[in-house]
Amino acid sequence: MTSIDTTAQAADAAARDLADTAPAVRAKALVAVADALTANADELVTLGMDETGLAEARLRGELKRTAVQLRLFAETVVDGAYLDVRIDRADPEFALGPRPDVRSGNEPIGPVLNFAAGNFPFAFSVAGGDTASALAAGNPVVVKAHPGHPRLSRRTAEIAAAALGGAGLPAGALQLVEGVDAGVAMLKHPVVKAASFTGSLRGGRFLADVAAARPAPIPFYGELGSVNPVFATPAAIAERGPEFAAGLAASVGGSAGQLCTKPGLVFLPADHGLDEALAAAAAVEEHRMLDPRIADHYQHGRDAILSAAGVRLIAPGSVRIDGDGQGWVTPTIAAVALADFGPHPDALLSECFGPVTILVESPAGTDYADLLERLFEGELTVAIHRADGDDVARLVRTAARRAGRVLFDGWPTGVAVTPAMQHGGPWPATTLGATSVGTAAIARFVRAVAYQNAPHDALPAPLRDDNPWHVPQRIAPAGESTTWGDGID
Amino acid sequence: MTSIDTTAQAADAAARDLADTAPAVRAKALVAVADALTANADELVTLGMDETGLAEARLRGELKRTAVQLRLFAETVVDGAYLDVRIDRADPEFALGPRPDVRSGNEPIGPVLNFAAGNFPFAFSVAGGDTASALAAGNPVVVKAHPGHPRLSRRTAEIAAAALGGAGLPAGALQLVEGVDAGVAMLKHPVVKAASFTGSLRGGRFLADVAAARPAPIPFYGELGSVNPVFATPAAIAERGPEFAAGLAASVGGSAGQLCTKPGLVFLPADHGLDEALAAAAAVEEHRMLDPRIADHYQHGRDAILSAAGVRLIAPGSVRIDGDGQGWVTPTIAAVALADFGPHPDALLSECFGPVTILVESPAGTDYADLLERLFEGELTVAIHRADGDDVARLVRTAARRAGRVLFDGWPTGVAVTPAMQHGGPWPATTLGATSVGTAAIARFVRAVAYQNAPHDALPAPLRDDNPWHVPQRIAPAGESTTWGDGID
Repeated sequence: MTSIDTTAQAADAAARDLADTAPAVRAKALVAVADALTANADELVTLGMDETGLAEARLRGELKRTAVQLRLFAETVVDGAYLDVRIDRADPEFALGPRPDVRSGNEPIGPVLNFAAGNFPFAFSVAGGDTASALAAGNPVVVKAHPGHPRLSRRTAEIAAAALGGAGLPAGALQLVEGVDAGVAMLKHPVVKAASFTGSLRGGRFLADVAAARPAPIPFYGELGSVNPVFATPAAIAERGPEFAAGLAASVGGSAGQLCTKPGLVFLPADHGLDEALAAAAAVEEHRMLDPRIADHYQHGRDAILSAAGVRLIAPGSVRIDGDGQGWVTPTIAAVALADFGPHPDALLSECFGPVTILVESPAGTDYADLLERLFEGELTVAIHRADGDDVARLVRTAARRAGRVLFDGWPTGVAVTPAMQHGGPWPATTLGATSVGTAAIARFVRAVAYQNAPHDALPAPLRDDNPWHVPQRIAPAGESTTWGDGID
Repeated sequence: MTSIDTTAQAADAAARDLADTAPAVRAKALVAVADALTANADELVTLGMDETGLAEARLRGELKRTAVQLRLFAETVVDGAYLDVRIDRADPEFALGPRPDVRSGNEPIGPVLNFAAGNFPFAFSVAGGDTASALAAGNPVVVKAHPGHPRLSRRTAEIAAAALGGAGLPAGALQLVEGVDAGVAMLKHPVVKAASFTGSLRGGRFLADVAAARPAPIPFYGELGSVNPVFATPAAIAERGPEFAAGLAASVGGSAGQLCTKPGLVFLPADHGLDEALAAAAAVEEHRMLDPRIADHYQHGRDAILSAAGVRLIAPGSVRIDGDGQGWVTPTIAAVALADFGPHPDALLSECFGPVTILVESPAGTDYADLLERLFEGELTVAIHRADGDDVARLVRTAARRAGRVLFDGWPTGVAVTPAMQHGGPWPATTLGATSVGTAAIARFVRAVAYQNAPHDALPAPLRDDNPWHVPQRIAPAGESTTWGDGID
């Protein structure tokens, strides 16, 4: 038996036990992980700084976010709304003949494989949102470690697995595998029932194709990145240009621009007059990039942008490769006239992972909704900066068709972890449009099971009349169905 | 421009208009289709009898079900729970720093391609559940007609499209294409954002692979069939053997066994003593199968079952091919000892579409949960026949891991169209585990969009504080989040 098989069998065994755990047990286990991460923050943050080059404050904030996220999923489990419990009582008078008692609720999908991200070594890694949401739903998780922070991954897995075990969860609830081959082998393993991923379009597409080509295909929830266009009206720039410039530079430069939600293209009026403000706001200290490979990609992507016809530099930024191959960067802000942007959008439309953004200087009267419709396929976010009196209705509707989140007068980075958050959009932002941030992320890892005419003691607890876990139940009483179609006016 | 392009462009144009329609408008349009189908029932049922060989009573019942289904989705639209509206008010005291106002709700996914089924010429065809749920969600639908009932498909499309248009929905809300090539071309077309399918494992897998291989992959919701195992305890057979025999024969023989939920394998005690009762119950009139191809497949599948070692006939049944190539059948009930079943389960485990079932005669003490676990991968249903005092807890839990619906002391055919119904299970029962029957089917054709710090007049109606459509809103008040992790005990 290979080590992949051993890991898979342990996950499969854990799946049975986990599916039968009470929600309070799973919730306490998630809180135990949050507490353990917090208790070991100094060690983990130090490891993270060394392996990723991210700043201490950023990593401390991310660890806090990760702990809050685990607690939020603990509350989600106990709340039980995610179970989507539906109870249709038997109805002898049903329009189509006697209706049986049918009750449904969500149950765990089975072992989940989580490909960890490199740019969030806590929040989208071993104990991050994908792991938390899959565990919350009652599934064991196998994490494929990101190669950018192997020691941190191993240490986090040790701490988290110990906390889960200490809280009574089965061994095999959380396991780690390392290396591309192990990840692909696990993705092909029959016991794995769903996978999540945060990373590049190229890597995500490769893995999505593997998942789809299995003898038994599984859902592959990939978050593949985004250009995150920003549209600023003339009135918005006139009203608060300097604030806009400072906010943009901060959003582009934070974490060295290595965020899926970094604003990559900014459509704004040609006469914005913000060159000086932007250049000043972008004059920040060098920041190390995550690893040499990313630095290399960034250098090439930035070169391609800057060599496109008509592109001028507002804040030149810098890329310096040190003796270890690590890249050190400051933000680059470029600009191009809409007339020059049009002829070669492909070169400028691709996501460039790092601290660069392109202003597209647009003449008065430019139809932003039309541009958005024509140029973009699927985005995590579209940001709209407007002022009172601007009519942005059509732009908003178009943005909703092209993105998972439409935000106003702000910046897409700094994704709030809340029930309503949607961090997923049409392809290629994500593979299936589902969110990987916020409590709705749990929906990726459940499937509904219906019970028909079940004896009461054979029903899962959430579907029982006595509702021992006090979860929300949507009850369709007998007789109601006979009125279908009435009352629509 | 090809006719495929013309159809696609019409769907794309309709998507914009439909997404902006008020729910009451869509609901009335669905009711108008229900009314129009009912008003034309005589013509439609006559066409259906001629093209499918299904009996008049069955088709009249199915048409009624289809109309009820449309009305049910009309109520679902107006109710608005399917929108899953979440409102997180801004929270300056948030654990992770000031939280913006974030509101999310489901929006239409875009044009849906629906591959119609042959065995339900109303309920899973042009105006069936997939079409109703996609339209209800606000998406235009292109139906790929099933070749088994082309005239009925065209006439239904005419009637339904006229009703939709009369109710104010845009042209292009419902269109029909015919032929495999047109279906595949449409599945590859970039404007199509999701597809549904009811049919064979082979056909469904082919189309699922096409959907996954697109430059922009889309979700493919395929219902690919199922063996629908039945497990009967000794006590159940002892208590009500004759009733069991009659119920089984009716479930196997109804609609000539051409149902996805037909029970194909029945595990029961070896000493059941039901041979005579079963043979008597299966002695019914000949029924025509849907088309010559299905009759041919059935004949071969039945032959393979009957030629397997150890298989004996309880009710021999019959297959007669007439001069037009149409197949006429009566139910076949075969039996095999568990000891003989074990060595060649593959031949006996495959779905055989038609009126045949296999009893697996099991010695006393047989572990049904273990059999279910080992032999089955993913089923639409598992039925458990038990008596008071039987401990079926482990069998139920195993069934829930292997199927979408677990039913007790009854038969899987005759799927109730209700809010809690789940007609989808793990692969290969369905591609993605989602239901295609009941109101939850609408969830396949929406995706969530979040709005962050939106001015109130830029929000979609369901997300507004004044809630003009009176939909359920889950509101996370400011401040609550700071207590995350407390109160779990």
